[in-house]
Amino acid sequence: MALDLNSDLGEGFGPWTMGDDAAMLDIVTSANIACGFHAGDPSIMRATCATAVRKGVRIGAHVGYRDLAGFGRRAIAVAPAELRDEVLYQIGALDAFAKAAGDRVRYVKPHGALYHAAAADGELAEALLTAMTEYDTELALLGPSGTELEAAATEAKVRFVGEGFADRAYTPTGLLAPRGLPGAVLHADEAVAQAISIATTGKARTVDGGDVAVSAASLCVHGDTPAAVEMARRIRAALAESGVPVASFG
Amino acid sequence: MALDLNSDLGEGFGPWTMGDDAAMLDIVTSANIACGFHAGDPSIMRATCATAVRKGVRIGAHVGYRDLAGFGRRAIAVAPAELRDEVLYQIGALDAFAKAAGDRVRYVKPHGALYHAAAADGELAEALLTAMTEYDTELALLGPSGTELEAAATEAKVRFVGEGFADRAYTPTGLLAPRGLPGAVLHADEAVAQAISIATTGKARTVDGGDVAVSAASLCVHGDTPAAVEMARRIRAALAESGVPVASFG
Amino acid sequence: MALDLNSDLGEGFGPWTMGDDAAMLDIVTSANIACGFHAGDPSIMRATCATAVRKGVRIGAHVGYRDLAGFGRRAIAVAPAELRDEVLYQIGALDAFAKAAGDRVRYVKPHGALYHAAAADGELAEALLTAMTEYDTELALLGPSGTELEAAATEAKVRFVGEGFADRAYTPTGLLAPRGLPGAVLHADEAVAQAISIATTGKARTVDGGDVAVSAASLCVHGDTPAAVEMARRIRAALAESGVPVASFG
Amino acid sequence: MALDLNSDLGEGFGPWTMGDDAAMLDIVTSANIACGFHAGDPSIMRATCATAVRKGVRIGAHVGYRDLAGFGRRAIAVAPAELRDEVLYQIGALDAFAKAAGDRVRYVKPHGALYHAAAADGELAEALLTAMTEYDTELALLGPSGTELEAAATEAKVRFVGEGFADRAYTPTGLLAPRGLPGAVLHADEAVAQAISIATTGKARTVDGGDVAVSAASLCVHGDTPAAVEMARRIRAALAESGVPVASFG
Repeated sequence: MALDLNSDLGEGFGPWTMGDDAAMLDIVTSANIACGFHAGDPSIMRATCATAVRKGVRIGAHVGYRDLAGFGRRAIAVAPAELRDEVLYQIGALDAFAKAAGDRVRYVKPHGALYHAAAADGELAEALLTAMTEYDTELALLGPSGTELEAAATEAKVRFVGEGFADRAYTPTGLLAPRGLPGAVLHADEAVAQAISIATTGKARTVDGGDVAVSAASLCVHGDTPAAVEMARRIRAALAESGVPVASFG
Repeated sequence: MALDLNSDLGEGFGPWTMGDDAAMLDIVTSANIACGFHAGDPSIMRATCATAVRKGVRIGAHVGYRDLAGFGRRAIAVAPAELRDEVLYQIGALDAFAKAAGDRVRYVKPHGALYHAAAADGELAEALLTAMTEYDTELALLGPSGTELEAAATEAKVRFVGEGFADRAYTPTGLLAPRGLPGAVLHADEAVAQAISIATTGKARTVDGGDVAVSAASLCVHGDTPAAVEMARRIRAALAESGVPVASFG
Repeated sequence: MALDLNSDLGEGFGPWTMGDDAAMLDIVTSANIACGFHAGDPSIMRATCATAVRKGVRIGAHVGYRDLAGFGRRAIAVAPAELRDEVLYQIGALDAFAKAAGDRVRYVKPHGALYHAAAADGELAEALLTAMTEYDTELALLGPSGTELEAAATEAKVRFVGEGFADRAYTPTGLLAPRGLPGAVLHADEAVAQAISIATTGKARTVDGGDVAVSAASLCVHGDTPAAVEMARRIRAALAESGVPVASFG
Repeated sequence: MALDLNSDLGEGFGPWTMGDDAAMLDIVTSANIACGFHAGDPSIMRATCATAVRKGVRIGAHVGYRDLAGFGRRAIAVAPAELRDEVLYQIGALDAFAKAAGDRVRYVKPHGALYHAAAADGELAEALLTAMTEYDTELALLGPSGTELEAAATEAKVRFVGEGFADRAYTPTGLLAPRGLPGAVLHADEAVAQAISIATTGKARTVDGGDVAVSAASLCVHGDTPAAVEMARRIRAALAESGVPVASFG
């Protein structure tokens, strides 16, 4: 079965850049593109969509809190109705650039603090799903399996794509171990091994040395540093060597 | 021939309100809805689109400079390519709410300083038209006749809808007289008379006491004060009495 | 002993206005002036400071989360060090306008969600106090008594001014009753009576019909509606009739 | 006579960085620190001020248009009174961090499009000077000699510090040659030579191969690329070898 590789892209703003999008778009099959709320601006969105389409990479709306200063990494107590509207706004804006590039937005992934908030809070998850189905019932949701996000997607009859992480250890219950814990962040060799493991056995490493089932049709890889790009490249190569096809879900 | 009445709506932001949108949506046939750059936020855009659709009012994207502090009234030296992208972003975002309300964006009107800049500068006008046609070739452009905007619309094969003003005197060459000039702003009775005149004879009053041809399939009316709302209501009633049908273009 | 009356002022932004600042500056003795993060802009800050100084009203920095769209009413998970910096920025910015008006910032009051967050969280309270003492050790802190804010002020040797509310009932433990509870929001007559009660007996009404000690050297009054302004005026007049001098702390 | 070296610093925002501030603060004697309008945020302002003070570098307020998306590089038609207020706000905000670091803001330099607008427009220059003298009459103004900025500073009795550029050729009338012109941007060797020339003979190179008098008590150097940092380092070393003391004005 094929595995998707996704990455957060288009995360510059105005004069500021972040990550090596050009390199990552040669590695991944799905691009989580920032929509202007936590990062991204119209010209960056256009350029990122255009390159993604040219390289055959699937476009997803990486929707976040309205918080450029905090990069969407700080939880904000947004009411569900307002979150629904902010998500709908972002999807519509990005889809205009996907359309200009000859494609359309195919999926949604919540960003940063919203990823965690909506995974844990059913009302927020439902708000996100409402925005998605108002816009296009064929949009998929990319996020953590076994959470309120997956439950809300199921309820809304929206295709859910579970996401795993190659470079992070998990807790025994299958959640991402917090970065602060010893052993939570895996080195490159470990990350490559974990990618293969998730793809072939459906298991990931836990912080206490065991393993745990992780249901992931997509792996998230990073491009914010040269080392991260190199790790992503190695993961893609290792998957190929292991006979795991890398292809976008859908 | 029918006359359209348009008004700038959805111009609040966050906790702040502006104008009496509910009243105006009973008067006008086209709603220029702010898209979040000079005014408007996702929840206001949703509410305004929903009410417009319920009342049979046509939805237009009122695109502006990215300048909430200046309400889009200050010229900003934006490069054409960047303007194109900012316009496309705004159209896409608003269209998501139009779609959620069961309709779609039907036209684009530039706001404030962008209205004047794009009327005078062919490159900016072309940038605006490029964004429009990238998104939907059936979008109409609402703006001042005889300007670079009309020329660019014609060039791009986009339907152009000329706009007139009931409450403003014109220069002998058919431009709006600057607000500062004596006689430039018309009183309610004069505005009602001018609305009838534009609709039935295609002529408007000039600041020097004459008249001038004004090609307008749509009249812009305002809702920012109770007096403005009342004037708009009188204009609509007077047009009906004069046998001029009030209906959306398109 | 004198009672201070404070109100949230300067809460417009760009083209948008909020409340009747001119009326309130004739009623209150302390002006909590927004600093541009949750509301307020440089020109509004200048005008509000100038009027406050002309009317002998004390200037306070009403510091809030960086969230114009949410008006500072949504909790944001800002790290203490970042909050400290955002508070210091706001104090400095407002003080420039106080200085231009011939005075200086005399106190700080946290706004909206930050008011509640810093009252409950010692680290946030300490961050706020650090910014205050870095700027000027003579700044007072206006806020709710018996909270982490008061504790942090005491620890930092900063003058703390307890604040009460005339138009809100309290819980039996002396906290503000949530707005949603029946009886939580007092009518005008009740609010006037509670103002006198707090000023003369140090007691406020509870939602369950009893009373509770409220230590308040300042009462917060509102100016966002004509009815609110009228209530504030009545409270000031009733205090005078009851022989309670109204004067700024400080 | 000593020459000052100044550089634009603190130009990150939120998660985004720009330039190598740590390296530049070992080279320059004056730090033009962004104040949050075109770049910079409270935590960056604190860190930059603290490092500047520790290294004995003079703190200046690099004031700009309110335009993060455009990095202050796009002219905005701001009214003079509003510009005055926006400048005052920025000076006050930065001074709070200078104070926290044990120093104060010593000078003001307009940034980007405002630099050029205020140099050419007497009303804008006067607005900037008004904000400066309202805040502190001892603030100096750093900017291009022979412009409206210098005239307004003289009129306001504010110390003016003329600024030159090592890496740019001039027009025969002493203005900076536009970047687009052939020969307008000097290579590293040429820039080092021009720095020496300005410092020792008061002359700079013109695009047509001649030279022109340039009155500059401060040279602007850049830190946005490793090559720019290296050029700045060479300029500093070459000045020392030529016996030109490098020291902050004032």
